Amino acid sequence: MAVQTVESANASTPAAGSVDLGPAAALSCRECGHRVPLGPVFACEECFGPLEIAYDFAGLDAGELRRRIESGPASIWRYAPLLPVPADVADKPNLNPGWTPLVRADRLAAELGVTGGLFVKDDSGNPTHSFKDRVVAQALEAARAFGFTTLSCSSTGNLAGAVGAAAARAGLRSCVFIPHDLEQGKVVMAAVYGGDLVGIEGTYDDVNRFCSELIGDPAGEDWGFVNVNLRPYYAEGSKTLAYEICEQLGWRVPDQIVVPIASGSQLTKIDKGLRELISLGLVEDRPYKIFGAQAEGCSPVAAAFKAGHDVVRPQKPDTIAKSLAIGNPADGPYVLDIARRTGGAVEDVTDEQIVDAIRLLARTEGVFAETAGGVTVGVTRKLVESGALDPALTTVVLNTGDGLKTLDAVAGTGLTATIRPSLESFRAAGLG
Amino acid sequence: MAVQTVESANASTPAAGSVDLGPAAALSCRECGHRVPLGPVFACEECFGPLEIAYDFAGLDAGELRRRIESGPASIWRYAPLLPVPADVADKPNLNPGWTPLVRADRLAAELGVTGGLFVKDDSGNPTHSFKDRVVAQALEAARAFGFTTLSCSSTGNLAGAVGAAAARAGLRSCVFIPHDLEQGKVVMAAVYGGDLVGIEGTYDDVNRFCSELIGDPAGEDWGFVNVNLRPYYAEGSKTLAYEICEQLGWRVPDQIVVPIASGSQLTKIDKGLRELISLGLVEDRPYKIFGAQAEGCSPVAAAFKAGHDVVRPQKPDTIAKSLAIGNPADGPYVLDIARRTGGAVEDVTDEQIVDAIRLLARTEGVFAETAGGVTVGVTRKLVESGALDPALTTVVLNTGDGLKTLDAVAGTGLTATIRPSLESFRAAGLG
Ligand SMILES: [Zn+2]
Ligand SMILES: [Zn+2]
Repeated sequence: MAVQTVESANASTPAAGSVDLGPAAALSCRECGHRVPLGPVFACEECFGPLEIAYDFAGLDAGELRRRIESGPASIWRYAPLLPVPADVADKPNLNPGWTPLVRADRLAAELGVTGGLFVKDDSGNPTHSFKDRVVAQALEAARAFGFTTLSCSSTGNLAGAVGAAAARAGLRSCVFIPHDLEQGKVVMAAVYGGDLVGIEGTYDDVNRFCSELIGDPAGEDWGFVNVNLRPYYAEGSKTLAYEICEQLGWRVPDQIVVPIASGSQLTKIDKGLRELISLGLVEDRPYKIFGAQAEGCSPVAAAFKAGHDVVRPQKPDTIAKSLAIGNPADGPYVLDIARRTGGAVEDVTDEQIVDAIRLLARTEGVFAETAGGVTVGVTRKLVESGALDPALTTVVLNTGDGLKTLDAVAGTGLTATIRPSLESFRAAGLG
Repeated sequence: MAVQTVESANASTPAAGSVDLGPAAALSCRECGHRVPLGPVFACEECFGPLEIAYDFAGLDAGELRRRIESGPASIWRYAPLLPVPADVADKPNLNPGWTPLVRADRLAAELGVTGGLFVKDDSGNPTHSFKDRVVAQALEAARAFGFTTLSCSSTGNLAGAVGAAAARAGLRSCVFIPHDLEQGKVVMAAVYGGDLVGIEGTYDDVNRFCSELIGDPAGEDWGFVNVNLRPYYAEGSKTLAYEICEQLGWRVPDQIVVPIASGSQLTKIDKGLRELISLGLVEDRPYKIFGAQAEGCSPVAAAFKAGHDVVRPQKPDTIAKSLAIGNPADGPYVLDIARRTGGAVEDVTDEQIVDAIRLLARTEGVFAETAGGVTVGVTRKLVESGALDPALTTVVLNTGDGLKTLDAVAGTGLTATIRPSLESFRAAGLG
């Protein structure tokens, strides 16, 4: 059955073969290395392992590349020579995400006891206020290259808005599938871009199962599902987080990075991005440690890391960090490899610690993070306390989304005082 | 009484005289030209007219200035030589707002019948997702220069978050006053930054009256109210919208700009910014037209413009565009001057047209605007239809805030369809 799904999905290839996706040369299986031409396929026909982009970076000179990047646009497209996109991507209508602030977080550092320099990579600055704009932008270029006319996904949150907005800008149809009983606020955020938004009577798993069926059906023939049949392209967008962090540090790899784990894809691609910069000679080849962050209510990778296992045992998620609530993370084993290879770790925090960390980050740095940002900041605190993270080294913490999208998490926050409009009342409240 | 308030407010000057605010040389009365040294004052002691910054731009060479700007940071601080801030402002902890996208809006242009190039200046990309970050950033530098230790304001929305976040980043105390019965969502957005958030039992007018009292009292001695005693500095932040638009167009003044009107300050400062760029030789001296946009439910300036009056008659606001709901706009007469002098106009739209325009912008460009953005896009449509705006000329429309903050306006937006998780149900719904 799994075989059937893979094969039928792999079959729908409107224009594969002669596509121009810049330096992307082929798709390559992460497990067995089998190579196939670029196309809307995501699983190896030999071993069913995940396919990823293989690049041809031959002929790239480090000095020239660096100059090109530095004179490029203030978006991810400054790195177009390293991404699966055509060279003229910045001239096409798209959301131009990225080049978000790397905030020097001295006040947060003081609270956490970090002395070696602490930075928050704040991806709430993206067009739809989450890192999803980075990955969807890659999927959009792949969709155009393969002649797809509808951009699609299943989602319960950030991805729905990112797909709706990107398709609107590009003039493609979008059709996003969500569980039919999603909260009204999230429905509005996804529906406002005017694409089709379809509620599915069932669980999120039912939504995903239906999407797989649709990919194999003629009705889904010219549909690009950003995180299914376009997943190899989509996933590469997370490399740009690594590129930007290094460039913003003055072309230097940070000693330590704390990354949230949902499927684990983002963490593996940040590692890939760092290794590319090193091998291209854009940064010095120095050791770095990658730390993974999960919520305790969905911590399958942290549990495996702590138990010393190579295999990730699925969990049923129960946490306020909805954007990280993937109980069976596809890239979990790769995350374990990377954390162990680089000398990092995978840690988790409780929902209460997540909320405390959201407040701490807002209070010290004026950055209002989504629950996922509370997870990374909370885990950073825990890792400093346990000694796993060295406070004397340069550390970058990711905030991948915006607090406005998870207002409920801090709903308890309220007024300091209520007073009458008089100086007397002001003084009586102890404010003067 | 008004005199008293002005004088007592003008009295609180902790460190006036020898402050370093870059090219800001003095404060000058917009009505009578009377000059006073830089300080936390906002009204002329001679005629009670509004004070604004007088600059010393002597010795600035256009070519050198342009190179300095272009190699500066991706924030408003690239224009530090033209703002009332110290030269090293970018090195201090602040939110670094600005350098937001100028979106080439070809799909919106097609819908509106604009052929000369249509652009949306999208200020939802700022750190707290509204243009208020630009103005608060100036007020923060003035507060530091004058030795204030508390940053304050009265607000019912965007300003509260911008002040709270900026103070948090800078390590200043913040104390924001709001009507005590504000919706819980807005309270959370303002309270999360950890400053004092004080509910006042009374109307928004009561809140403002109380703030004026506090400024005159010893208890408010080291308080900087961003839009009261720091208003001359604060207001200058809006010039950066003009600078960015011109630089992003390749150092060219657009033919037509559509700007929302609340107090009218933003529109007057955009005009000031354009005139500065022209007189400094950074752009060619070409004519431009500035158009003002209001909601019909709060349209005192549009009413005066249409009636040919010089005086603005106050209105009681009743519109969904809350961030523009100022019934007695202080800069109304200056706005009328500018619209008439440049050959522009002031127009208004209904709440229904505002919602339609929010949807239109989201559907065509993937930009989800606050109600104020619905006002400017709606007014642009109306101005094209009436012929007041020339569709063959380059036009820039401002979106000053984020749709996530005014979700209620589009709350009616919902699912296209609800289906069972089957291809049969999918086809029956007409989606396949
Ligand atoms: Zn394989
Ligand atoms: Zn005067």
